[in-house]
Amino acid sequence: MNNILIKNGLLVTMSKYGVISNGAVYIEGNRIRLIGKSKEVEEECSPEKVIDASGMAVLPGLINTHSHLYQSFLRGMVDTAPLVDWCEEVLYPFCRMALEDAIGGDDRLVYYSTLLSCVEALKSGTTTIVAMEGVIQGPAVIRALKNAGIRGVYALTLADKWIRRDIILPTEWALKRSENLIKKYGEKDKISFMLAPSTPFCCSRGLLKKIVEIAEKHGVGIHIHVGETRYEVDYIKQRAGMGPLEYINSLGLLDVHPFVAVHCIWLDDKEIRILKEKNAGVSHNPESNMKLASGVAPVKKMLNLKIPVGLATDGPASNDNLDMFEEMRTAALLHKVSSLDPSMISATDVMMMATKLGAKVLGMDKEIGSIEPGKKADIILVNLMKPHIQPLSDIFRTLVYCAKGSDVDTVIVGGRIVMSHGKLLTIDEEELLRKVMKIAEEKLSKLDEYRKPREPIKESDLQALS
Amino acid sequence: MNNILIKNGLLVTMSKYGVISNGAVYIEGNRIRLIGKSKEVEEECSPEKVIDASGMAVLPGLINTHSHLYQSFLRGMVDTAPLVDWCEEVLYPFCRMALEDAIGGDDRLVYYSTLLSCVEALKSGTTTIVAMEGVIQGPAVIRALKNAGIRGVYALTLADKWIRRDIILPTEWALKRSENLIKKYGEKDKISFMLAPSTPFCCSRGLLKKIVEIAEKHGVGIHIHVGETRYEVDYIKQRAGMGPLEYINSLGLLDVHPFVAVHCIWLDDKEIRILKEKNAGVSHNPESNMKLASGVAPVKKMLNLKIPVGLATDGPASNDNLDMFEEMRTAALLHKVSSLDPSMISATDVMMMATKLGAKVLGMDKEIGSIEPGKKADIILVNLMKPHIQPLSDIFRTLVYCAKGSDVDTVIVGGRIVMSHGKLLTIDEEELLRKVMKIAEEKLSKLDEYRKPREPIKESDLQALS
Repeated sequence: MNNILIKNGLLVTMSKYGVISNGAVYIEGNRIRLIGKSKEVEEECSPEKVIDASGMAVLPGLINTHSHLYQSFLRGMVDTAPLVDWCEEVLYPFCRMALEDAIGGDDRLVYYSTLLSCVEALKSGTTTIVAMEGVIQGPAVIRALKNAGIRGVYALTLADKWIRRDIILPTEWALKRSENLIKKYGEKDKISFMLAPSTPFCCSRGLLKKIVEIAEKHGVGIHIHVGETRYEVDYIKQRAGMGPLEYINSLGLLDVHPFVAVHCIWLDDKEIRILKEKNAGVSHNPESNMKLASGVAPVKKMLNLKIPVGLATDGPASNDNLDMFEEMRTAALLHKVSSLDPSMISATDVMMMATKLGAKVLGMDKEIGSIEPGKKADIILVNLMKPHIQPLSDIFRTLVYCAKGSDVDTVIVGGRIVMSHGKLLTIDEEELLRKVMKIAEEKLSKLDEYRKPREPIKESDLQALS
Repeated sequence: MNNILIKNGLLVTMSKYGVISNGAVYIEGNRIRLIGKSKEVEEECSPEKVIDASGMAVLPGLINTHSHLYQSFLRGMVDTAPLVDWCEEVLYPFCRMALEDAIGGDDRLVYYSTLLSCVEALKSGTTTIVAMEGVIQGPAVIRALKNAGIRGVYALTLADKWIRRDIILPTEWALKRSENLIKKYGEKDKISFMLAPSTPFCCSRGLLKKIVEIAEKHGVGIHIHVGETRYEVDYIKQRAGMGPLEYINSLGLLDVHPFVAVHCIWLDDKEIRILKEKNAGVSHNPESNMKLASGVAPVKKMLNLKIPVGLATDGPASNDNLDMFEEMRTAALLHKVSSLDPSMISATDVMMMATKLGAKVLGMDKEIGSIEPGKKADIILVNLMKPHIQPLSDIFRTLVYCAKGSDVDTVIVGGRIVMSHGKLLTIDEEELLRKVMKIAEEKLSKLDEYRKPREPIKESDLQALS
């Protein structure tokens, strides 16, 4: 691994070091060793590679705290349909198809959809992404994350009720599979794990309790969709006599750290206080919440309480892209208009959410989320010499309101240059697109066949995979 | 001018011809001559230039129905400030500076800020843009529109009260200047005109009536900000005893055609019916309305009444960009979440707003807004071979939810190729950026000096300009 000097850039550290004009970062191996003015850093280092960041902003890589990478094959498929109809029509058939593929030993659908998502994320400046994916396709997901070169948090999705029966895996097998994946791949090659009960209403009490046990046993966090829809709140209140977050807190989920509450649109004040008391983190997904007409999360209220709120795109099925620059801009705009108050959320707020706070939400703030000596070298360079960016204003406002994912020039993950001058170095994009188009054509044309539920999957079906 | 054949593209005509796969457009001079399947069109034409649109969507150029091009120098400057404070701090000083420059014979600020906006707009697929700009800098604005090669509707801004006195031009002079600009430059070189009373509260009754007279005399339309803020509604109701649109209708403004009502957030049902009865058009500016926390316009209600609603970015001061692809996506998302109904506005709705309906709003629907034989050849090619676009879904959903301004590959305005493979052919971008940065540095550092109002401008100050 090279030692790299990035110099002559506008360094936006997202840390106590602030913004450094004509700044430099010296990377030794996978970590940041020095930062400061270019001249000073240059004198103290012996780089094997020098990157001239003239005309560029140098930022910590963006952190996408929630997504579903397999959904890239479903982008652009949802428009005006309510969520439930769309699940029946598209999502469940797609999941069933992927399950049967996995059982039959064909992991192309999951591998290439995940890889395509990783490529899109990297190209638009994301260096860490939470992939909330099924457990059956574990090795394919991990292979895609590794081959792309992105830092991945694999949130292992678990559910045992409410959704279509034939996409539910036998519970014991799924839990065992989760443990095996964590043991085999945990904390290596930039991959870490969380356990991800899908939603409070898709998991039985028994499953939720087992998830807490396993999370504590392996020292991994919990990641869950909660408070996304009014339907969910009504459903849980009718059955448990309390709101969904209060309910999962009563089962011990919020005692696990990190605990990531995804969406949090319809939480009441009592539940927001629970987030605070339990030191939980929130993943805010404004564009997905807009597309599905779910609502607007009370982000300002949570930030005021110093609850860490990270930003996320959600999956391409409900967002259609994985572009965190766009997500930052939309987040700021959405909260201004929904409150009729332009001071509601600032550019600095959303930059924090997309970097430092995102890292905190994932329990990774000692390692990533800012440019500081000692942290992992997850860094992006944004080209500021564009007609939609100049003349420059305050750099935070410029980055949030003017810059776009397509302005990302260079991406470094853990000291490895993954993209340079807009060209991905880990994956051949043209070849990837050819594969993706071929597999999508073959597979998506068969979706209809999976629309009617099939036989539930039995443990005996899965023996070849164990 | 060349005859051009565009072939092998996915033709999205936005007309009765629908979507044509493997489609072709034959351009003769500045107009579309033939469209159809590539093979058939190819047999009937003799092009001097052939553009291979394999892997691309071929669309009518997007129509931005409202913007302020001089504001590109102010991008990224507003974040959390209420509109009024920001006008005092930034906009009024900037306007005063530009006025004094114009009087002193220095038009660099206006020329380069306008040119920068045109470049950004063209690069992201806009072929027609409404430039609502002051009248004093007329020749510089027109030179920038022409040099960039964009189709421009110059909405000549007029005001005689409420705003800072020292940025108001003597009324008679401004009206005369407007007439002179229309006479000298009207309907040539892709430039047309409208008269643009700034808002109902920035213009006296006398001025509004004179504007109606002049508009009718010269056969140009009227373009006005109306119903943007609750402040405006209260202000006009207190003084005129009716809502702002009803008020300007009582003065005859809506009898002029085309009449473009910009924003229309806070109109009541009676006023929406007036729009319908008067055959008026609406310019919808979702992102600017979000940024300034103005509110959400009742677009669905207007579309249901078959009131033509076009899309717009507004100026870069309140939007920070001029990207109509982003505006389409945000429009769809905003209306879904604000109504909590995902079926509220569809991808097809916003595509219509950005093309055909936009043309109708501007009274230009016989000439632009769709790909049909006989119409002006305003056409863009969008590269679909990108990792954030594939695999393709329905082309409307793909274009609205997945494609980005940076995917625009080729731009043709009135049969002239203005951009090819992402490279602008009319303007040297690097040279432009150098100029812009130099002038911005020189000028923006002086903004402070213009913060305190100066002497009003007298007609005698303007003699050199007449």
